[in-house]
Amino acid sequence: MEKHVLSVLVENQSGVLRRVAGLFSRRGYNIDSLTVGKTENPKFSRMIIVAEGDEDFLDQLKKQLGKLVEVVKINELRPGQSVYRELVLIKVGATDAERASVMELLKIFRGKVIDVSPETMTLELTGDPEKIVAFVALMERYGIQEMVTTGLTALARWS
Amino acid sequence: MEKHVLSVLVENQSGVLRRVAGLFSRRGYNIDSLTVGKTENPKFSRMIIVAEGDEDFLDQLKKQLGKLVEVVKINELRPGQSVYRELVLIKVGATDAERASVMELLKIFRGKVIDVSPETMTLELTGDPEKIVAFVALMERYGIQEMVTTGLTALARWS
Repeated sequence: MEKHVLSVLVENQSGVLRRVAGLFSRRGYNIDSLTVGKTENPKFSRMIIVAEGDEDFLDQLKKQLGKLVEVVKINELRPGQSVYRELVLIKVGATDAERASVMELLKIFRGKVIDVSPETMTLELTGDPEKIVAFVALMERYGIQEMVTTGLTALARWS
Repeated sequence: MEKHVLSVLVENQSGVLRRVAGLFSRRGYNIDSLTVGKTENPKFSRMIIVAEGDEDFLDQLKKQLGKLVEVVKINELRPGQSVYRELVLIKVGATDAERASVMELLKIFRGKVIDVSPETMTLELTGDPEKIVAFVALMERYGIQEMVTTGLTALARWS
């Protein structure tokens, strides 16, 4: 089954998150990821929803979301025509001897160090989901002490 | 009123987002921002919730969240002791004549260009909320055509 990324413009009303989450839960739809944040217009927020299913599921999902009064606009952001990005903050074990290797890998992935202690480093990285997964896998041998991700956000490319 | 940032470790069960959103909505609590994503352990997700209120509200909120069966652990991430980060993708108008100025500002803010067209640039920036607000304000004179943000994610600093 394919992953679908929907960009859903919603009015800033309390309860909209509950209603969207309720729709998924009630219908047994599984949300892979959901982010909600500010837009170019302070009256609206934009939700980026990632969900897995076939084309029928996608049509159903769009139809159900469209019924919610707060939903203004729904766009599917297909791969190739879209930019996908995630943010991860990750705290890894890193002794004096390991720090240089971690820095080197981080540089390749164009990430940033945001905190350091004698035995740990906290790193920030953005990228598409594949890049994030690859970096996290590389960090595993240093010991991942804590990790937090934002979920996917996305925008249409110029075409 | 103060903004509070809670890091809430939850079990990966469908319905947990609905229950958390429902709690806020039912009690009339306002969510400034909520992100949910993967953690160092595939069995758990971590929600970062930003909400505004006094200390009484904060105590209530922690107590109510603690009652949800999926909630494993709640940490408040206070400023100074924490790293706050947001990710923004922003598409601005930029003609040939304006491109260099946009690039210069982006460099100062350590952002990245992720897409370009003859008349637009799509930019990626991470930072704490103050930095994001400052950058978005600077971009306004170019014309913000589209913007999407992840909401806040956060991690405890080493101390």
